[in-house]
Amino acid sequence: MSTEELDAQALAEACAEMLWRDDMATKKLGMKIEKIAPGQANLSMTVTSDMANGHGSCHGGFMFALADSAFAFSCNTYNQRAVAQHCTISYLAPAFAGDKLLACGKEVSRSGRNGIYDIRISNEKGDAIAEFRGYSRTVSGTLLGENNDSQ
Amino acid sequence: MSTEELDAQALAEACAEMLWRDDMATKKLGMKIEKIAPGQANLSMTVTSDMANGHGSCHGGFMFALADSAFAFSCNTYNQRAVAQHCTISYLAPAFAGDKLLACGKEVSRSGRNGIYDIRISNEKGDAIAEFRGYSRTVSGTLLGENNDSQ
Amino acid sequence: MSTEELDAQALAEACAEMLWRDDMATKKLGMKIEKIAPGQANLSMTVTSDMANGHGSCHGGFMFALADSAFAFSCNTYNQRAVAQHCTISYLAPAFAGDKLLACGKEVSRSGRNGIYDIRISNEKGDAIAEFRGYSRTVSGTLLGENNDSQ
Amino acid sequence: MSTEELDAQALAEACAEMLWRDDMATKKLGMKIEKIAPGQANLSMTVTSDMANGHGSCHGGFMFALADSAFAFSCNTYNQRAVAQHCTISYLAPAFAGDKLLACGKEVSRSGRNGIYDIRISNEKGDAIAEFRGYSRTVSGTLLGENNDSQ
Repeated sequence: MSTEELDAQALAEACAEMLWRDDMATKKLGMKIEKIAPGQANLSMTVTSDMANGHGSCHGGFMFALADSAFAFSCNTYNQRAVAQHCTISYLAPAFAGDKLLACGKEVSRSGRNGIYDIRISNEKGDAIAEFRGYSRTVSGTLLGENNDSQ
Repeated sequence: MSTEELDAQALAEACAEMLWRDDMATKKLGMKIEKIAPGQANLSMTVTSDMANGHGSCHGGFMFALADSAFAFSCNTYNQRAVAQHCTISYLAPAFAGDKLLACGKEVSRSGRNGIYDIRISNEKGDAIAEFRGYSRTVSGTLLGENNDSQ
Repeated sequence: MSTEELDAQALAEACAEMLWRDDMATKKLGMKIEKIAPGQANLSMTVTSDMANGHGSCHGGFMFALADSAFAFSCNTYNQRAVAQHCTISYLAPAFAGDKLLACGKEVSRSGRNGIYDIRISNEKGDAIAEFRGYSRTVSGTLLGENNDSQ
Repeated sequence: MSTEELDAQALAEACAEMLWRDDMATKKLGMKIEKIAPGQANLSMTVTSDMANGHGSCHGGFMFALADSAFAFSCNTYNQRAVAQHCTISYLAPAFAGDKLLACGKEVSRSGRNGIYDIRISNEKGDAIAEFRGYSRTVSGTLLGENNDSQ
């Protein structure tokens, strides 16, 4: 790994740590960060019985929340605050209480202040559960140290 | 209100009651059904401190969950089980702990087994917080009485 | 109609005229502007045999083009240049050669530099053919007179 | 290449040939098939002056049409007729008259009758111009030989 890659990796990890510190929602939902790299974040979450909807499977909101967190951690790895503008999710198969879900985020494109990230959610058997695409936009402020950018 | 409209309204309400009964997720998030009509459902939810993300505002997953529930209750008003296939959400303004959010769902189109529903989330001041569009598909089974449709 | 509404209407029409002047694509596809108002544009187009795809119906690209033009004319009615960032289209029913399609655009939200516009395409019988949602963003420059805004 | 892969490749090519034969729209827009494989299709198109919009760049409808054709050829490589249900496109950079655009389609997921395909459009310099995601659904009928499936 080159010095530059190492720095990018260290920066990504420091950003994730900072984001995690204040993210009550992600913690309370029982998510765990499994991997962080520049433009990439894998998060896991176990479906609880409280997450069941009226059809008996995991409410889309919780699958979305898992993907959305993986998206947020993916697009905030460059020490430039980025927020979600627009997100899409497609449900491929249901998830049930007890399933341990893994959301793997990867960067599709980043140009100017706009980014596109794909997050796939799969279960422990490797079945694809949902495909999420998030569109981010950088805003003022850094994650580490002072906020010094104009919005 | 004509008899047919009354029947459609009574059916919509009975479907909502049935869906609500088993929907732990929607209940646990503190949502309330504010209005039900054929193809329409308004749900409210107050943002709690547990719903804050790493930027200090309401995690997108909870805004999505509110819209998604309004969507589910909107598209399940005809006693034909319908599920989400694909959803999009656009964030217009942040929401904060203490905000009471209202999600108003309305039907855009319904043809064959496919439906499109728009849900707008606004806060108590009437500010638009998010715009959600959900694409549903009917599956086998009714909400009331026996399941008698083939998938 | 109040003076302010009249001014907004006159401005919308002047913007549409300016946009139309240079829009070779929209003209060459045989589109016609049917209505212009602030945040709103209705455009029509007749499907030709050259627009058929490998399934014998109108290629999605031409339905999209019609909706996209209605979107562009809708979001450019305020004399502030706006461009498409992101668009979605859902096909509800096929269109065929000879069908005269009408795309009706309306504004869903406009806040800061971001706008959301819905465009419904229908045929002469009034059947819904497609639902399009466009997300716009204003950029530097006006449509009428000098360009005097910073990007 | 294994026999099974070879067969899948031959089937994909035969399907593309059949689809191409009737696709007036794709031909008239000057598109060329650059590559076909199971679940994959690359198509190219040169932007003409007729494709310019009121902002002087390539009208989104033509970029969409290119991506949509790459999508259609990608999802119709299994000799099972598939149609677009829903598509999204994000514009990353403008394209201009004379630009030769390449749309590369790849399969993201395929389960039951539903498929998701990503198409990236880039120019000759390799700049990303647009990202498209298409959601397909199989319908009755095969591309080669008799139609023998129920819808």
